[in-house]
Amino acid sequence: MAIAHAAPGQLVDVQPLGSKLSESRNVALFKTDELEVMRLVMPAGKTMPSHWVKGEVTIHCLEGAVSLTAGGQIRQMKAGQLVWLEGGVDHALTAVQDSSLLLTIVLRK
Amino acid sequence: MAIAHAAPGQLVDVQPLGSKLSESRNVALFKTDELEVMRLVMPAGKTMPSHWVKGEVTIHCLEGAVSLTAGGQIRQMKAGQLVWLEGGVDHALTAVQDSSLLLTIVLRK
Repeated sequence: MAIAHAAPGQLVDVQPLGSKLSESRNVALFKTDELEVMRLVMPAGKTMPSHWVKGEVTIHCLEGAVSLTAGGQIRQMKAGQLVWLEGGVDHALTAVQDSSLLLTIVLRK
Repeated sequence: MAIAHAAPGQLVDVQPLGSKLSESRNVALFKTDELEVMRLVMPAGKTMPSHWVKGEVTIHCLEGAVSLTAGGQIRQMKAGQLVWLEGGVDHALTAVQDSSLLLTIVLRK
């Protein structure tokens, strides 16, 4: 995973990658003691296996379409949709189209 | 502010409002003990006066363009850009164009 931590106040581009998606990689935008934000790049067919984190999570589909399994339910997310999950909830993703996602994770100790 | 809290796992539309922006209002998407996410609707010229919150904040410009003043610095944000601010940092916004923004706030007690 390429690391490119943004400083506070620094503008970060999270526009759709479009034709550059296939050559793009996941980017950790920043991580502090309480919050982590990353952009996940998922070409069609790519999966993120089921996992969970302690804190709450938001998932914002920036482009494409993904299948989100969370808490035993499957939902189809498309660009421009956002979802939040409680801490400790198992979730998995499969890209239905070439997709990128903004993940925001509350870091709970 | 219209309140429309989303349940965990519920898909929420945060696409650009476009021509509906002028008739749209701020929406609290959800609020828990640790996280609050809202969509701020700012027609051109609208300002949010300087203020601060305890926890960290991300501001994601979904459409339009805003002038962000944070920690004494002024930055021009446009659609598709994101910024994060540390807790306790004064910030203010002025919409340069009709804009909507996704605000994510870590709630620190």
